[in-house]
This record gives sequence, structure tokens and C-alpha cells, in this order.
Amino acid sequence: MTWNDWLAEQAAAREAAGLTRRLKPRAYDDGVIDLAGNDYLGLAKHPAVTAAAAAAAVRWGGGAAASRLVTGSLGIHAELETELAAYLGQPAALVFSTGYHANLSIVSALADKDTLIVSDAHVHASLIDATRLARAAVTVTPHNDVAAVDAALAGSTRALVLVESIYSVLGDAAPLADLAAVCERHGALLIVDEAHGLGVHGAGLVAQADLAGQDHVIVTATLSKALGSQGGAVLGSSALIEHLVNRARPFIFDTGLAPASAAAALGALRLLEADADATDRIRRRVEGFASRAGVEAPAGAVTSIPMPTPQAALAAAEACAAEGVRVGCFRPPSVPDGISRLRVTANAGLSDEDWQRATDIVIKVAEAHR
Amino acid sequence: MTWNDWLAEQAAAREAAGLTRRLKPRAYDDGVIDLAGNDYLGLAKHPAVTAAAAAAAVRWGGGAAASRLVTGSLGIHAELETELAAYLGQPAALVFSTGYHANLSIVSALADKDTLIVSDAHVHASLIDATRLARAAVTVTPHNDVAAVDAALAGSTRALVLVESIYSVLGDAAPLADLAAVCERHGALLIVDEAHGLGVHGAGLVAQADLAGQDHVIVTATLSKALGSQGGAVLGSSALIEHLVNRARPFIFDTGLAPASAAAALGALRLLEADADATDRIRRRVEGFASRAGVEAPAGAVTSIPMPTPQAALAAAEACAAEGVRVGCFRPPSVPDGISRLRVTANAGLSDEDWQRATDIVIKVAEAHR
Ligand SMILES: Cc1ncc(COP(=O)(O)O)c(C=O)c1O
Ligand SMILES: Cc1ncc(COP(=O)(O)O)c(C=O)c1O
Repeated sequence: MTWNDWLAEQAAAREAAGLTRRLKPRAYDDGVIDLAGNDYLGLAKHPAVTAAAAAAAVRWGGGAAASRLVTGSLGIHAELETELAAYLGQPAALVFSTGYHANLSIVSALADKDTLIVSDAHVHASLIDATRLARAAVTVTPHNDVAAVDAALAGSTRALVLVESIYSVLGDAAPLADLAAVCERHGALLIVDEAHGLGVHGAGLVAQADLAGQDHVIVTATLSKALGSQGGAVLGSSALIEHLVNRARPFIFDTGLAPASAAAALGALRLLEADADATDRIRRRVEGFASRAGVEAPAGAVTSIPMPTPQAALAAAEACAAEGVRVGCFRPPSVPDGISRLRVTANAGLSDEDWQRATDIVIKVAEAHR
Repeated sequence: MTWNDWLAEQAAAREAAGLTRRLKPRAYDDGVIDLAGNDYLGLAKHPAVTAAAAAAAVRWGGGAAASRLVTGSLGIHAELETELAAYLGQPAALVFSTGYHANLSIVSALADKDTLIVSDAHVHASLIDATRLARAAVTVTPHNDVAAVDAALAGSTRALVLVESIYSVLGDAAPLADLAAVCERHGALLIVDEAHGLGVHGAGLVAQADLAGQDHVIVTATLSKALGSQGGAVLGSSALIEHLVNRARPFIFDTGLAPASAAAALGALRLLEADADATDRIRRRVEGFASRAGVEAPAGAVTSIPMPTPQAALAAAEACAAEGVRVGCFRPPSVPDGISRLRVTANAGLSDEDWQRATDIVIKVAEAHR
């Protein structure tokens, strides 16, 4: 088969399954209320954040111009690393150009053929890709099953356990204290992706569980969600960070994070530190919405509404959009359990009126399509 | 061995080999002349570029707030994609959050267990990692050896051939016309990374070889070098781009490129289009410098000066820095041939005086350390 025939065959199969995705670029002034994004606190458009980004672009330039190890380490990166580590209660931090790069880096720089990786069945694509890069042996354990992790680690040396603090699609939390205890017992490292925990739960669930700064618990984070920017980070001991600087290929061979993005994340971090009430505001919205929608309240900021088919999920999302509300529409292969769903973010940056109006629309539309 | 012991052992081995790397964050106003970065035309700090970045941050926010497929596709991404495709003479383009993501995506979305990947021995880490992600069979061919590529492709179906138009460390060019002919004969796709060709050679070497827009030649690019920003792109047919949108995990499961970075790249692209003389200016600098340094002139903008040991390379780079000039210092494992070297960028954005003064220093220092 030629490549062109292969591409056409793949496209036809997607189309037949109702799974074709298309990019729909949005305008900055489309007036749509966004319940689809991960900008949980509405900080991406906060004037202090955008002003910090703009000033950094003018001061430092449009890009870092080189790998962090060549000439692309900027003062703004170092400042962000210092403040991120302090906020999360960690000894040290390293900033990456995306959250994806952070996950690829930590796993592939630690694991080799002799390492066992134990991965929760629901972890994010970036962690799955990371295990492929590492070429280590991988055991996938059932979701949130601490006993299975314990069993998988039996007899291992230098093992890694991969979890998320709040899972991105289903919105449930990992049993971090139990997982950390199991890892400590086996001498394994617990790698916790706080992509959807940071900001939604203040300094994150690792910090809340009093696990920050422990050598056997490593945190990865992204700057692209509650921090309203782009980029990622790994947080842990300075020995670990030094190891990454020297060994993580997706760090070493990649241009440093753009100055504007580093500055936006730093600006958002400072707002977050000053806003002790943010977590409660998100919590109230999540619980109110989930109960009105008749689904379980998630541990994070994202409520998931299961839909009967991929087509129904798409039609419901389109009906919401027609009424001026954007919601997430997750279909295979973006769902760990194969169930299509609407994904509704409790955006604490919206006014009460907008939030009320938008969620009324979502609940009405979802009911009509279930 | 515990993880802490393992980290300590690795650090000691690096230290003993003289290969420990440390981040040295720079200040924006350090007054150092930079011959180390990849901002080949000095566009990262061009006022039109930084103003475009700043305006986009204010208008669109600090981040895209979601994956491109959810709500993170912005008008500024679409605009950049349209203009990039037009400039490179390609039917369509897709923008990624890093150049690394672009390379991971194109290879892993096309290749599977049944695909043969033929990879030049000198390709960038991102393409090597991409082949690992794809889990396809890989044949590494000697550098720039067209006959070896031809032999490797014999009898293959749906094969990919991975090369760079200008190689990042050694600065030499790939024999693109011959490679494309071999690929066409075998029904293989040639994937050409134009990271160091775009801008340095106008619309790149694929366009110059009249291969742009041919179905069997795919281009990847980064926005982080001559375009002075952050991000990456894949350019090819619309069927290919649609395939990536639907299948490339490092695209689907990653937050869209930050608005400021997309706008900076677009601003730089427009300057590049208007500046027909840029390639000649770089060429003159490269040739003058290489002849003064007594090394071969590279095909790209980066001249490589081999050094006897990693320690000598580091000492020379530090001596340059002490005199106010930053040069790249490449040591294993960042060099394809194991030879440590200084890497000197002909930065066409510098004034004649700065360029002359900086290169005088580099030549003097390099001689003292060889
Ligand atoms: C759990 C999780 N980890 C990592 C990432 C990757 O982060 P980024 O988009 O910043 O690359 C995401 C989402 O994109 C995510 O949901
Ligand atoms: C040849 C080549 N390809 C890809 C990349 C990755 O691009 P980026 O830094 O934008 O991720 C680089 C350098 O960083 C490179 O030199």
C-alpha cells in the first residue's frame, strides 16, 4: 500500500467510527463562555499575568534562543524555579518547555532496561510515552489500586511508580499517602503528576499530604493549566534536578521555555500565593454543578458527564457551543475507560452570572442528549 | 542500590569524566555578545517581534489554556500555519508547542510495528526519541550515505527516512535531491528537519531543491531558531496534517503553543520574507570566520571548531566568556562523533563591529586551547 492510500484508509476508518477531529480556531473576542479549558482560575487573561508576559517578551526577547545548557537559561527561568519550589515546599525545581517534556524527562532520565516502571492504568499520554522512551519494563496496575502497586513492586530494585494527583479526564484523586508508604517500603520512587492538582488544591495534593520534600516522592507539574501559561516543571531534590540537567534528553536537546511564558507562569504563581480562597471557590462551584448535573463531584475542578456514544457527546458539545458555551468533548482514544463524555471545568475566573448561565445551558443540553 | 546511591554514583561518574553540566542563568543586560544561540538573524529581540509577542499575550492571554483539539486552537495559530505553509511552499502546516513535539509527532503518528524507519546517524535527539516512541524497526545509516539509504529501503513497504537539511552540530547539509529520488523510487517518505535550514537558507533547503509540496517529502521545522521564538511545525499535504491532528499523541495531549510565542514567530516570519538579503549576510560571515579559524565553512550558520578534549572545550568557552563572548561548548553526549568542540553561530543580527571583535576573541582563545 502506498503512503497516500494508507492515509486515506486511516481517514475513512476514523470517519466511519465518528471519531474524526477537526481544529476549530477561536477568535479572542468570540464572547463564548469557556468551560472547556484548564485555565482553572482564569489567570491566563488576568491583567497582571498578561502584563508580565508582555514585559518579559520585550525585555528578554521572543524566545530563549538556545537550549538551557547552551545560552538559553535566563534569569526569569531561575526566578520561576526558585518560587515554584518554595510554593510547592520542594528543595528544587527545573522548568521545561512543556508539561509533556517534564514527564518525558523525569521517566526517561531515571529508568533504563533494569528499572521496573509501575504505571496507573489512567495516567496521561505524556507518562505513557515516557515509559516507551525509557525502554524499561512496565507493569500497568488497575486504576488507584494500591495493593496491585504493592504486589507489582515486590522484589524490585530501583522502581518508579507513575500516578497523577488528580486524574485529568475522570477528575478523581490518587491515594497519595498510601502509595507513598508502599513506595517507601520498597525503595521505589513515586512520581506524581500535579498537572490538575496545582492551583486547584493550592500547592497541590503532595504538599497537602505532607509529602513535599521527601526523597521518595517526585512532583511534575505543568504551567499550562492553573498557571495559565505554557511549560512544565519537575520538583524534587537538588541531586535529582542535577541529574535531569545532565541526562534528560527532552531537556538537554530542547530550546528553553519562552521568556513570556516563564513570566506569565511566575505572575500567575504570585497571584495564586496571594489568593488563599481560590481552592474554596472552585470547590463550591464543582460541588454545586455536579449535584445539579446528577453526577458525582470530582476531586479536581473538572466534572465529567458520561454520554452514550461519541456522536452524542459531539452533538451535545456542538449544541452548547451554539448557545455560547464551550465544553470539552472527550471521545476515544482520549478517555481511559472508552466512555465518551462532556468535560466541564469549574472556572473560578468567571463571574457568578456567567457561571450560572453557562452551567444551566450545559445541564439542559446534556439531558437532551443522554 | 537505593535511588539516592544511584544518583550519587551517576554524579560521581560524570564528574570524573569532566562531563558535568551546570545551568548558568544569564541576565538580560549582561552585555555579552552571543555567538552560542540559534537566533541566527537576531530576530528574537527585534522590536517588531517582541511587540507582536507582547500584544498577543495581552489579547489572547498567557497561554492557550487547553489542547488544540479542545479549546486551545487560536486564530493566531491558524494565521501562523497559513503563512508558514505559504512561505515554505507547502500545502498545509501544523504548529506544535516545541520543535521536539513536531518531530515526536510526525514519526510516531506515521510509524507502527510494520514500518521501517531509516535514520541518518547524525539526526537530532528529538528524531531518535521519536523512533523509540514509534516502536518501529530502525536502521541507522552512515551519515549522508545515500547508497546506504537505498540499500536499507530495498523491499520495504511504508518506510520513513529521517534526515536534517542542515545538521545541528556539524553544520553540514544533506544530499536532499538524491535522498528524495531514492525515497520516491521505494515509495518511502523523506522527513526533513529544517530546524537549522529555515531562515538561514530562506524558505529552507527543501524549497530550494524544488521538493516543497511533493507528497513524498515532509518538512519539520522549529520556531525557536531563526524565527526567534518557541514552537515547532510540520509541513505537508492536508491529508497528512489531518492525520496528525487525529493521531499524533504529542499534539493531541498537549496544550497549544502560547499566543505570545505564535505571534513572535509570525512577526519574525514576516521580517524574514521581507529580507531577501539575510541568507547572503549569514553566508559572508560564515565563510569569513571559517577561513580565519582555519576550519571548513559549514553549509549552515554554525561553524564548529574541534577541540582536543572536553576539558579544553570547556576551558576555551570559559575564556571567551571572560572576554565577553558566549560560544557554544559541545561535549559528549551532545556530539554525534564524540569530538568536543566550540560551536560558533554567525549571528546576522550583530553589528559588523561586534561580530569582528567577538570573532577575533574566539579565534585567539581557540588557538590557545588547541
Ligand atoms: C495530567 C497531565 N500531564 C501532563 C500534561 C501535559 O502538559 P502540557 O500540556 O503542559 O504539555 C497534561 C495536559 O496537557 C495533563 O493533563
Ligand atoms: C535539528 C533539530 N531539530 C529539532 C530541535 C528541537 O526544537 P525545539 O528546541 O524547538 O524543541 C532542535 C533543537 O533544539 C534541533 O537542533
